[in-house]
Amino acid sequence: MKVGGTAYCSIWLEPDGRSVGIIDQTALPHRFVTLTLTDLAGICHAIRSMQVRGAPLIGAAAAYGMALALKADSSDAALEHAAAQLLATRPTAVNLRWAVEALRRMLAAMPEAKRAEAAYFRAEQIAEEDIAINRAIGSHGLKLIRAALARKQGQGPVNILTHCNAGWLATVDWGTALAPIFAAQAACVPVHVWVDETRPRNQGAFLTAWELQAAGVPHTVIADNAGGHLMRGGQVDLCFVGTDRTTACGDVANKIGTYLKALAAKDNGVPFYVCLPSPTIDWTIEAGEEIPIEERAGSEVSHIAGLTENGDVVSVRLTPAGSPVANPAFDVTPARLVSGLVTERGVAEASREGLLVLFPERAGAAA
Amino acid sequence: MKVGGTAYCSIWLEPDGRSVGIIDQTALPHRFVTLTLTDLAGICHAIRSMQVRGAPLIGAAAAYGMALALKADSSDAALEHAAAQLLATRPTAVNLRWAVEALRRMLAAMPEAKRAEAAYFRAEQIAEEDIAINRAIGSHGLKLIRAALARKQGQGPVNILTHCNAGWLATVDWGTALAPIFAAQAACVPVHVWVDETRPRNQGAFLTAWELQAAGVPHTVIADNAGGHLMRGGQVDLCFVGTDRTTACGDVANKIGTYLKALAAKDNGVPFYVCLPSPTIDWTIEAGEEIPIEERAGSEVSHIAGLTENGDVVSVRLTPAGSPVANPAFDVTPARLVSGLVTERGVAEASREGLLVLFPERAGAAA
Repeated sequence: MKVGGTAYCSIWLEPDGRSVGIIDQTALPHRFVTLTLTDLAGICHAIRSMQVRGAPLIGAAAAYGMALALKADSSDAALEHAAAQLLATRPTAVNLRWAVEALRRMLAAMPEAKRAEAAYFRAEQIAEEDIAINRAIGSHGLKLIRAALARKQGQGPVNILTHCNAGWLATVDWGTALAPIFAAQAACVPVHVWVDETRPRNQGAFLTAWELQAAGVPHTVIADNAGGHLMRGGQVDLCFVGTDRTTACGDVANKIGTYLKALAAKDNGVPFYVCLPSPTIDWTIEAGEEIPIEERAGSEVSHIAGLTENGDVVSVRLTPAGSPVANPAFDVTPARLVSGLVTERGVAEASREGLLVLFPERAGAAA
Repeated sequence: MKVGGTAYCSIWLEPDGRSVGIIDQTALPHRFVTLTLTDLAGICHAIRSMQVRGAPLIGAAAAYGMALALKADSSDAALEHAAAQLLATRPTAVNLRWAVEALRRMLAAMPEAKRAEAAYFRAEQIAEEDIAINRAIGSHGLKLIRAALARKQGQGPVNILTHCNAGWLATVDWGTALAPIFAAQAACVPVHVWVDETRPRNQGAFLTAWELQAAGVPHTVIADNAGGHLMRGGQVDLCFVGTDRTTACGDVANKIGTYLKALAAKDNGVPFYVCLPSPTIDWTIEAGEEIPIEERAGSEVSHIAGLTENGDVVSVRLTPAGSPVANPAFDVTPARLVSGLVTERGVAEASREGLLVLFPERAGAAA
């Protein structure tokens, strides 16, 4: 996607053929800053501190992290160390584990001298695959938007609510939940997006609003509390969200608060779709309750950074000093609340049977 | 309740017998500031800017506003002007209308010379009544907490989730949703409170956390998004919230986001109670959809004030400049999601029939 006229992906190989470029997402929306990462520690820090975030982008970043590590030391010990360091950064997104384990398996079977080159090749391939997957998700999701427009007798815009950021910044390009919206914009299908601010990290207000504004998509930022009221008032036609991990039965872990929106959608007959690249599916688990939920620092709730009138970005305390804070980062939305899973192969019913229609090669492989 | 060892109500008549004292709630939790209001304009500003907020306190403040206006000019014209100014400050809370109309009716029937004194007398009476009502709500709600403790085989604490601030700052004293919690604390019944931060105005993080800390009640502040996840994990035993207006059939308008928590409570079998003084019941309407919902300034979502490391309170921008913002301030929770209405007369089923059991004098009076 373009930023100020220049085309960007959210991660790239620098011209030196070794270093990895990223957009520092913790600086958005107030500053657009790119960083060059040159070692495993830099990648681990970027993932942990959420300079890069979003399940698909974390997967690609982890693959590049393996490549940077192997470039420095291609021994078995270094390979195991890199995998362990990367797996420890964040627990919920399955793409991280998927990418790290795919590279570990592949590289362990190769002679040391070939490992670094192979790791870079595979990391670039993962990034390219992610772009293709998301383009396909966009095209399948666009059909759902067109169907919603038809239900409104063509009286647009189609009002779409989204939570957190599942745009191109959360992937390598295009996004998952926002891919259908960018596709609609390109196809001149009128859309308007309700952007949940998504406390505590405000990825909606900070990143989704920034992406939509950059792409010229009409949107309105709302407090996370507002979505149910808007649905009761008939002001939401569709919900599109992403996911960090989907079970073999169609339960989805996504940013904290997603479950509440799914409940409201169900209560008001609003279709609720989860958009996901298939590497986000964890075929080894059945029930959402088995997904580990990351508990992040309480300071993410007690403090927030914003822009002062003087143009400085400062962090301010919101809670009384001494009041304890809890900060679970994800919740699980059970499959019964999900209208469909929008994958690169089409829209699946949120169930084992539904997923196996699109991914028949997984039959018998699951837990 | 006490602040730093001194007993406070949230509103009081100053020693001059004319001016009205309030706590400037927009300065909390970082500063404790009291203000002296000397005229109608000061009261209207305090209500509109939310220096005073909470349905019961708004009612009491409006009554004092009538008194201040009549003290300056006791003519019929001044009476009508004061009523109109006060009614225009905020649309959702019914206590405001109830207090203003009660005083208007009473004062219009009196000789001008008696009006100011009568208005002060009635305003003080409304404040006193509110305190007594809330003490009774606390005692009825305490029984629900004791029952929850019994369901846990006495293994406390009872984990109670609350949204917004329905504590003593929202009333004249004690609070509505927090009254049972303060009563439990006094009775040594172990409780722990999950405090929704309550975006966009953060009344939970700013006021409820401050009240609970001042009273020594164990509590944890969470993002509004987290409550559903906690309920799915069995970490919430009860929900207590307040309301700004309750219909004759038991639908409740409360701070935006309440409806989402009620849905999650229903989905997880967590009892969801709404605590309300009977002046919050609007017997003239049946369905929640008839309640006017205040749309407040978008700047409440796009900007937030907090405390810097230097101890300054500054406002920072959270959203990208140019992204539109919407800010509905309340939502409606339908009676079907409410386990019971905790009133000063006891706990009613959330229905016309349930309310009429406790308020039989209203039979036939409703719409």
